[in-house]
Amino acid sequence: MNAVEGGITAVTGILAAGMSAGIKKTDLPDLALIVADRPAAIAAVLTLNKVAAAPVVLAREQLRHGKARAILANSGNANACTGRQGMADAREMAVLTARALGCAPEEVFVGSTGVIGKPLPMDRIRAAVPALVSKLSRQGGADAARAIMTTDTVLKMAAATERIGGRQVTLGGIAKGSGMIHPDMATMLAYLATDATVPRSHLQRALRLATDQSFNRIPVDGDTSTNDMVLCLANGCAGNRAFSPDSPDARRFQALLNSVCTVLAKMIARDAEGATKFVELVVKGASSHRDAVRIANTIATSSLVKTAWFGEDSNWGRTMAAIGRAGVKIVENKVSMSYGGIPVVRSGIGLGQTAEEQANMVLKQREFRITVDLGLGRASVTVWTSDLTLDYVKINASYRS
Amino acid sequence: MNAVEGGITAVTGILAAGMSAGIKKTDLPDLALIVADRPAAIAAVLTLNKVAAAPVVLAREQLRHGKARAILANSGNANACTGRQGMADAREMAVLTARALGCAPEEVFVGSTGVIGKPLPMDRIRAAVPALVSKLSRQGGADAARAIMTTDTVLKMAAATERIGGRQVTLGGIAKGSGMIHPDMATMLAYLATDATVPRSHLQRALRLATDQSFNRIPVDGDTSTNDMVLCLANGCAGNRAFSPDSPDARRFQALLNSVCTVLAKMIARDAEGATKFVELVVKGASSHRDAVRIANTIATSSLVKTAWFGEDSNWGRTMAAIGRAGVKIVENKVSMSYGGIPVVRSGIGLGQTAEEQANMVLKQREFRITVDLGLGRASVTVWTSDLTLDYVKINASYRS
Repeated sequence: MNAVEGGITAVTGILAAGMSAGIKKTDLPDLALIVADRPAAIAAVLTLNKVAAAPVVLAREQLRHGKARAILANSGNANACTGRQGMADAREMAVLTARALGCAPEEVFVGSTGVIGKPLPMDRIRAAVPALVSKLSRQGGADAARAIMTTDTVLKMAAATERIGGRQVTLGGIAKGSGMIHPDMATMLAYLATDATVPRSHLQRALRLATDQSFNRIPVDGDTSTNDMVLCLANGCAGNRAFSPDSPDARRFQALLNSVCTVLAKMIARDAEGATKFVELVVKGASSHRDAVRIANTIATSSLVKTAWFGEDSNWGRTMAAIGRAGVKIVENKVSMSYGGIPVVRSGIGLGQTAEEQANMVLKQREFRITVDLGLGRASVTVWTSDLTLDYVKINASYRS
Repeated sequence: MNAVEGGITAVTGILAAGMSAGIKKTDLPDLALIVADRPAAIAAVLTLNKVAAAPVVLAREQLRHGKARAILANSGNANACTGRQGMADAREMAVLTARALGCAPEEVFVGSTGVIGKPLPMDRIRAAVPALVSKLSRQGGADAARAIMTTDTVLKMAAATERIGGRQVTLGGIAKGSGMIHPDMATMLAYLATDATVPRSHLQRALRLATDQSFNRIPVDGDTSTNDMVLCLANGCAGNRAFSPDSPDARRFQALLNSVCTVLAKMIARDAEGATKFVELVVKGASSHRDAVRIANTIATSSLVKTAWFGEDSNWGRTMAAIGRAGVKIVENKVSMSYGGIPVVRSGIGLGQTAEEQANMVLKQREFRITVDLGLGRASVTVWTSDLTLDYVKINASYRS
C-alpha cells in the first residue's frame, strides 16, 4: 500500500469542487461537491443520534437506492432541528445538483455541518450549484475538503493505492471535524471514494468495520452528533476482478480502507478544538474488547484527565478514578500504567516521585502515548484523543457570536 | 421545618473541631473531627467507583458494626490508590481517634479528600489528633466544615429543626465538593448528624432516598469519585418517640433530611470549580423517571452545552443534540424547551430570533432555569449544575502544582 497525493480526487473517475456560496458569515468556502463519472456503489455510516439532521434522514432514504453519483455538502449550517422546511431544503439540494449534473435526485447525497436550528439560505445555494458544477475538476479534492471545514484549523484529506484483483486501485477521502473532546462534540463528516469494483453489500460491511477502527476511536463509539456521516463511493473504474469476502484481495481492500480512514481520524483528533496535546491511549489486558473500549472512552472523555494533560501533570490518580467509574469490572491492584514507556503505576500503586517526574517530561511533548494494562485478559484497544484547554472553552463559548 | 445556624453542631450532643495538621502544602485547615457524645446509629452512602479509597473500604467494613462515635476526615490527600499502606493508615486514623476519645476503633469513621496516590503524612496526623480532640466544641461546626475544603471557595453547612415524635429534633451537616462538571469530578463528602432517635435500618433507607434527591442530582447518579461519602449519625439525644416507617413522623423526618441534603447539594453545585452560572435544569414529560434522569445528566455534563452557557448563548441546538444522544427514546418533534420561562423550542423547532434574543438575556443572569419538556409522559426530574469555564480549566490544569 502506498500513500498518494490528491485526496478524494486521486481516485480515477472522481471530480470535486468547493466554493463560497455565502452560507457562512465570512467569505470562506462553504459548499463542496464530489461527483463520480458513473453511478457508483454507495455505503454509509450515519449518526445514531435520535435527533438526526435532515441530510441524514434523506441519506437513510436514499441508501435503499444503492447507487450514487454525487455528494453535495455545506458548512456553516447543520440543517438540523429545522422540521419540514429542513427536509424540503435537503431534498432541493439533491434536485438542484441532479439537474445540473443530469442524474436522478436520489443519486445525490447531501451533507451539512454548522449551527443547529437555522433555516438554510436556499437562495444562495440555488445560485451557487451551477457555478460549483462548472468548477468540478480532478484537482478539486482540496477545495472540497476546505469547503466542509467549520472550526477545523487543518484541511483533512488522504489517499492510498493498493494492488487488488490484478489492478492498481486507489482510495481517497476528505474529512471534517475538529475533535470530539466529549462524545457529543463537533460534527464529523468523511467522504470517501474508490475506483475499485466492490459489491455494495461488501462495501457496506467494510466501511462499518473501518469506521469502528478509525472514526469511532477518537472517541467515542455510537455517541455522535446530529449530522455525523461517513460515505464511501465505489465507481469500479479500476476494472479489478471481483473479490469474494474472505479472499486476500478483500483483506487488502479492507486494509486500504482502514488505512485512509485512520489517517483522516487521527487528523481530526490532532485538530481537536483548542488542543495542545495529541494522545494515543492504549488499553490492554482487558477481559473483553467491549470493556477495553469503555475504559478507553471513559478516560479519553474525562474533563479532569484532559485538563491534567493540558497542565502537563501526569496525575495518574485521575486516570485510575476514570478506570474505576467506567462501569466495567476491574481489579484495582492488577492495574498498571505507563506514560510514553515510563511506568508510573504497578499493581494499582504509584511508583513514586522519580517515575512521576519522568512522566511529567513525557507530557511536555506535543504527542505521547499512555498505556493502561488491566492485567485481566487479552483484549485491547487504541484510541486517539486530546487535552481540554483554555482555547477549547473560548472556541465553544463564542462559536455563534 | 425551620432552618437554624450552627451546621452539624446545631445538633444536641454533637461536638466538632477543625485545624491545620500540615497535610496540605499551605497552612489551611486540613483535619476535621465530629464526635457524638454517645454511640449513635450510623448510615452511609459510599462511592460506587471500583477504585475505592482506603477510608471507603474501611467504612464498608465498619458499617457492619452499626454504631459510631466519631468521624475523622482530612483534606489535602485522598488516601486512594495507596495499597496496603493506605489501609493501614486509615485504620491508624481510627485507632488514634478512638484512643483519644476512649471508644472502640470500629466506632470511628474516616474520610479523606485530595490528591490520589500519595501516602498520608501519618506523623503529622499522629501529632494532631490529641490537639484536635482538645478543640472539640459546640461551636466547632464551621471549623470542621472549613477543614474538609479543597478547591471549595465557600464553606458549606446547614441545619434545620422539626417537631417529630413529640420533641423538637435537629438535623445538621457539613459538606465539601466544588461541583461535578462531569461525573468524575471532585470528591464529595457530606457528614450529617441528628439528635432524633431513628433505628439504623430506617436511617439507612432515609439517607439513600435523600441522597438520590440531592447529592445525586448535581449530576450524576452512581458515577462518583474514589472517595465520595455521605454519612449520617443519629444519637437519639432529642428523646422523641420512635416512629414507624410510614407514619407522619417518618415523613417529617424524611423531609428534614431531604431539606438539609438539598441545601448542601445546591451549595456544591453553586461552588462548582470556576463556575459563573448556576443552572436549575428541569426535564419533564418523560416516559419514565430513569429516562428523565438520563437526559438531564446528558445535558448537564455536555461540554458543548456548558461552554455555551458560559458564553451566554442560548444555542439550544446543542441541548437538542445532547437529548438525542442520551440513549433514551424521544420524539424530536414533541420536544419543547424554555430558558427562564421564555419558550425557545416548540415541536422540536426553534421559535426564532426574538425568542433567542430574550433567552440570551436570561443567560446573562447568574442563576437561571432551563426546562425541557419531552412531551411523552409524566415523569420529571430537577438537577442543579453549572457552566464550563476558562477558570475550570485553569483550576484543574494546575491543581497539583
